[in-house]
Amino acid sequence: MALKGDLHRSPIAHRYFWERVRDAVNDFTGSSPSRFAILVFTFLILVFTLLFSLPIATNSGERAELADAFFTAVSVICVTGLATVDMASHWSLVGHIFVYIGVQIGAVGVLTLASILGLVISRRLGLRAKLIAASDSNPLRAHHGPVSESQAVRLGEVGNLLVTVALSLVVIEAGVAALLFPRMLIDGIPLWDAIWNSFYYSAMAFTNTGFTPNAEGLARFENDYWFLSILMIGVFLGAVGFPVIYALQKQLLKPRLWSLHVKLTVVTTVLLLFMGALAFIILEYNNPKTFGTLNASDTIFQSLFLSMMTRSGGFATIDIPDLNGSSLLVADMLMFIGGGSASTGGGIKVTTLAVLFLSAVAEAKGNPDMEAFGRRIPGDVSRVAVSVVLWGATIVAVSTVTLLHITKASLDYVLFDVISAFGTVGLSTGLTGDLPESGKYVLGLTMLLGRVGTVTLAAAVAASQTSKLFRRPEERPIVG
Amino acid sequence: MALKGDLHRSPIAHRYFWERVRDAVNDFTGSSPSRFAILVFTFLILVFTLLFSLPIATNSGERAELADAFFTAVSVICVTGLATVDMASHWSLVGHIFVYIGVQIGAVGVLTLASILGLVISRRLGLRAKLIAASDSNPLRAHHGPVSESQAVRLGEVGNLLVTVALSLVVIEAGVAALLFPRMLIDGIPLWDAIWNSFYYSAMAFTNTGFTPNAEGLARFENDYWFLSILMIGVFLGAVGFPVIYALQKQLLKPRLWSLHVKLTVVTTVLLLFMGALAFIILEYNNPKTFGTLNASDTIFQSLFLSMMTRSGGFATIDIPDLNGSSLLVADMLMFIGGGSASTGGGIKVTTLAVLFLSAVAEAKGNPDMEAFGRRIPGDVSRVAVSVVLWGATIVAVSTVTLLHITKASLDYVLFDVISAFGTVGLSTGLTGDLPESGKYVLGLTMLLGRVGTVTLAAAVAASQTSKLFRRPEERPIVG
Ligand SMILES: [K+]
Ligand SMILES: [K+]
Repeated sequence: MALKGDLHRSPIAHRYFWERVRDAVNDFTGSSPSRFAILVFTFLILVFTLLFSLPIATNSGERAELADAFFTAVSVICVTGLATVDMASHWSLVGHIFVYIGVQIGAVGVLTLASILGLVISRRLGLRAKLIAASDSNPLRAHHGPVSESQAVRLGEVGNLLVTVALSLVVIEAGVAALLFPRMLIDGIPLWDAIWNSFYYSAMAFTNTGFTPNAEGLARFENDYWFLSILMIGVFLGAVGFPVIYALQKQLLKPRLWSLHVKLTVVTTVLLLFMGALAFIILEYNNPKTFGTLNASDTIFQSLFLSMMTRSGGFATIDIPDLNGSSLLVADMLMFIGGGSASTGGGIKVTTLAVLFLSAVAEAKGNPDMEAFGRRIPGDVSRVAVSVVLWGATIVAVSTVTLLHITKASLDYVLFDVISAFGTVGLSTGLTGDLPESGKYVLGLTMLLGRVGTVTLAAAVAASQTSKLFRRPEERPIVG
Repeated sequence: MALKGDLHRSPIAHRYFWERVRDAVNDFTGSSPSRFAILVFTFLILVFTLLFSLPIATNSGERAELADAFFTAVSVICVTGLATVDMASHWSLVGHIFVYIGVQIGAVGVLTLASILGLVISRRLGLRAKLIAASDSNPLRAHHGPVSESQAVRLGEVGNLLVTVALSLVVIEAGVAALLFPRMLIDGIPLWDAIWNSFYYSAMAFTNTGFTPNAEGLARFENDYWFLSILMIGVFLGAVGFPVIYALQKQLLKPRLWSLHVKLTVVTTVLLLFMGALAFIILEYNNPKTFGTLNASDTIFQSLFLSMMTRSGGFATIDIPDLNGSSLLVADMLMFIGGGSASTGGGIKVTTLAVLFLSAVAEAKGNPDMEAFGRRIPGDVSRVAVSVVLWGATIVAVSTVTLLHITKASLDYVLFDVISAFGTVGLSTGLTGDLPESGKYVLGLTMLLGRVGTVTLAAAVAASQTSKLFRRPEERPIVG
């Protein structure tokens, strides 16, 4: 008894205690990184639900309804950009600052978590993967030197990653804001408004959120191609993913040195951008409500902008319900695919689609292996991709059926807003603003599962690889 | 010269000629069974387009419009059951006989082709698969004895299969008709009408077509649970697939002896039947237009019937547009999945879904292999499944976007009719009947690609397996 009492007061005992806390955290992040990610996001959403429930957060000075505070918190932390209230008029300046801070935390959170999960996967995949992970071109390594033998991700590494991610975010957002700022001054916006708006727009672009600080939204800038182009660059950098940014920053002009992941992400993103734009041009060029009144070059630019925003940016220069039903469905598909891995973009991720496609190509050619850019992709990667797509399709299906039943609205609109939530895109047909309370919770949950689910699922299934001592006899069912 | 001339006239020369024709046919069916399947279906559709273009085929005695003749021919040969005209009033008795004969040819055709393709796959997969193929439980073998070493499917085997399939079809349809006939007499239908109607309904059930011979359709029998139950059995037998029928007929009461394919098909089909029915009960029990006026047991029965018909049967006791949007989407998913492999049912097939699901389960558990019922499923099967789903999703997406653009109709209805066409189901929201000419060709093509595509794609990709002499260096992209 006396001994224990002494220990509790001694510095050594304190060190023991903190070491045990640290070990417990390490064990938890290392042994169940997916659960850790879900906990972090849920905690952040609770905090921001509380913040948005404060009377000072609203313009009216009255407490926001719980469903709206919750929905806004999820939308901000998951960097979605959907809203059940009119963002510009409902929230006070304090509320808008919460939004601004929230999307930054959400963006740093998702980039860091995705990168940690990437690290965990690399560790678990054993020596071969470790050698790859040790190469200089892997951005998931926070510092150089031999890779640790331990399988757990230590707190120090998490800290390093957090700092690297946060620094990148600050640098890129400052750069985008610096490009937006003079344009706003030229457009005659007052100095302080221009500063606040350029930082706000910059954050909303790089974090792929898509909220606008001003009441009239992007309509003010819809013909300002300089402004819109900078937004597109911000959205592209956010959506392409941290590993790709890291590689581009080091080897922008040496694409031969890019890793397979970087090549796949860039090629698929660019292909989707142009194919999406082409589809929108064909389907909307004679729609009087959208591009029907524009000339050819304006139609091309606005189609490219719309295509890029479905990557998960969520800014819009047109009213979404004005689009033809066919364009809505094309947008649905683009939003479902989403951005790059370990990015602020959502969806199943462009590499997931690319791997599925490569898998089908390998089958069609009769190759036993998937191949791309002179590299062989292991077969288990395609199984992870299948899991992610099944997960995504299931969430979208269940959420769509539920919201169809709650709202009795048309499938065109329900599917669009559900996929926009799942892919954390933030474009809306207007359905989200008209949801009853139960619908707000359903769509909020869809965002959370879309955001955390795809990131952690891939890690969880890839990390759980075990080898088996025996194999069962083989038998081949007929498919198709 | 003289020698050649002699040969041309001699019996030996004739034998040479016929042997060369036979070899050419063998080469073609063996080397490119998918192209063969597409040619057969295209040929049948051309013939039936001509038949439906004959003035004697219509009630009015006037030549049907080409788009309608083509659409009806595709719908009949692909055993879909969609119609751009009012089937009961538009076609004469001759026209209806063409329909009756057409669905039989279509059903025998698809069952035989799918089985031939199964044979080709088995041959190509080498000795291990051959040993499996040699086992008594494999229905794809037309007769017993050691498996031929040749990789091509010989004409004789095709003939044997054709006979086996046609015999099964005649026996099952006669059985179903014999069960329907007394019921029709009891219902007060005149003798000759009862005979014709019972054979017609029986054929439409087993071939999973879903046309009705009488003007008022199934409405006459909507409360006749004996009649509807027999239809369900007919549809189930057709949709479950020829390999399963073969196994059930031999080992109905010894499920332990069933092959993996049979077990997977039966379990998935039954699960989908009950899960679909449960969803329809939940979503429709209080819909006054559908099941709202029914008592509990009627609601359960009608939900089971609707769920079974989305398997690809296509009969309906309710008006599809009366369903809630949520139920339409559930039906979309069930129709997309469709029936069993080598069946008259359509869609991506239940085993394809099962394999994708097992692949995700294996990933989640960290197993390197997919397992089911104590058997290991080779990894390339899941890649074939991915190819089939990608193919199906692409057809449905392109067709839906095109028809949305042509008709400007609501996505609820367009997606339903497109998936109904792709899955050769034949249920309709009414959109098909209102299509403009271009839309009829788009939907007709959707049916053909859905019918031939999934069957041949799986065979084509599975048959093209080659081994490689070198493997490229491995690299792992991040997915999800
Ligand atoms: K967004
Ligand atoms: K059908």
